[in-house]
Amino acid sequence: MVRSFEYPKKQHNTVKRYNDRGTYELGPIHSVVNNSLVVHVSFAPNPDDAFPAILPMIGVMASYDHPSSSIDEPLDCYLHGYVSSRLMRLARDSEKGLPVCIAATKVDGVVLSLTPNSHSYNYRSAVLQGYARPVEDVKEKVWAMEQITNKVVPSRCQNSRWGPDNVEMTSTMILKVNIETGSGKIRHGEPHDEAKDLDREDVTSSTWTGVVPVYEMFGDPVAATTNKVKEVPAYISSYVKEATTSNQEQALEAIKE
Amino acid sequence: MVRSFEYPKKQHNTVKRYNDRGTYELGPIHSVVNNSLVVHVSFAPNPDDAFPAILPMIGVMASYDHPSSSIDEPLDCYLHGYVSSRLMRLARDSEKGLPVCIAATKVDGVVLSLTPNSHSYNYRSAVLQGYARPVEDVKEKVWAMEQITNKVVPSRCQNSRWGPDNVEMTSTMILKVNIETGSGKIRHGEPHDEAKDLDREDVTSSTWTGVVPVYEMFGDPVAATTNKVKEVPAYISSYVKEATTSNQEQALEAIKE
Repeated sequence: MVRSFEYPKKQHNTVKRYNDRGTYELGPIHSVVNNSLVVHVSFAPNPDDAFPAILPMIGVMASYDHPSSSIDEPLDCYLHGYVSSRLMRLARDSEKGLPVCIAATKVDGVVLSLTPNSHSYNYRSAVLQGYARPVEDVKEKVWAMEQITNKVVPSRCQNSRWGPDNVEMTSTMILKVNIETGSGKIRHGEPHDEAKDLDREDVTSSTWTGVVPVYEMFGDPVAATTNKVKEVPAYISSYVKEATTSNQEQALEAIKE
Repeated sequence: MVRSFEYPKKQHNTVKRYNDRGTYELGPIHSVVNNSLVVHVSFAPNPDDAFPAILPMIGVMASYDHPSSSIDEPLDCYLHGYVSSRLMRLARDSEKGLPVCIAATKVDGVVLSLTPNSHSYNYRSAVLQGYARPVEDVKEKVWAMEQITNKVVPSRCQNSRWGPDNVEMTSTMILKVNIETGSGKIRHGEPHDEAKDLDREDVTSSTWTGVVPVYEMFGDPVAATTNKVKEVPAYISSYVKEATTSNQEQALEAIKE
């Protein structure tokens, strides 16, 4: 039997449009977050402020209590970035934590059909909602900082001056979001044109249709002026190569129906 | 005299951390939105819903009333994507429009310093706040649809079956956001290490530091099964090439101090 965890469908996370593209499975949703360099985190700043706020942050799905959990099991979202005193106060003072919404989107291709109305992207998007609290426990905080750094470049912590000192510990804020619910949306495949356009020879003979693959490319590492290590270490060069190759493959794979 | 428009600094958009990275100039902020394939749009769905919502959408900064406005002049944000009946109702029914926050972030590089605490990204981010309303005027709506399509691939409208029919007009929703305020954040340059790490030979001799450039790559266009046009047209192939080259240059340029 294959276990497959899903987020509960609630009024606010139910995918209504193109609902065949919607997913509630934890695996695909968590993967989008962990493969995105940046997530966007939204919250309500103040009762007297009309607008929601959004902060770009680094997010990683992981479990401190069950560190061996796989990507398709229940996980928390740890967030790193600039946590303003306002955000800190809101996250600390509310009983359950601050209600936040976390979104990440990867574009895999530009889908060009016969008419702009049928144009689309191949993409994977994730939206999570949950309660954010600052991580106060020292061990959990150091563990979360390691997850965040090593998410960006695997094993970077172990290959740099790791072990935050007291100043670094107090100047860094990590938020832990207990996820209430989430949803994902995935579009892949070719352009889908309608008969009204496919049946017009004047249109089909003059309009190129297809997909332009889009992916995140990691270029050759450029050493800092102060760098003293001659060669780019293998854990960096192989990561750069593998991440680019895997992104490219994903963009090409997405074109298949 | 060089005119330079800036967004007003208000309590909710003032960049506090690393405020030398902050910008209120319209040009850089609008450019991030227009160079991002996806923006994330946040709004408060319901008074009884604890969480803000986020939708990934396509956004373009433009002015219908002053179409020749340049990127550093006052512009509106036109949004396309799935506008749920809930979002439509909220945007239509509120007197000033629905308060939304729009965010876009481009990562230009991964900045690897001697210690994880000083790690960073080279990036450009934009956050805009304003009031969203559905575009009801037919001419403005068609104009906005053209802006959105041609933002993704320049002159695509003119090279496909353009001119939305009645069904397409009614099934497509465009939101226009009157921007109240905005801010941007830009980080570029090399890793910035602290003396406490730079002075330790055991650290500098073992830790590679530098920047891994990151940029959005557009791959070779893949024709659809139903495509009847033999060659990829020049406006597509040159766009793919130029966009990738310009993204790559921007990532490398960002490394310079």
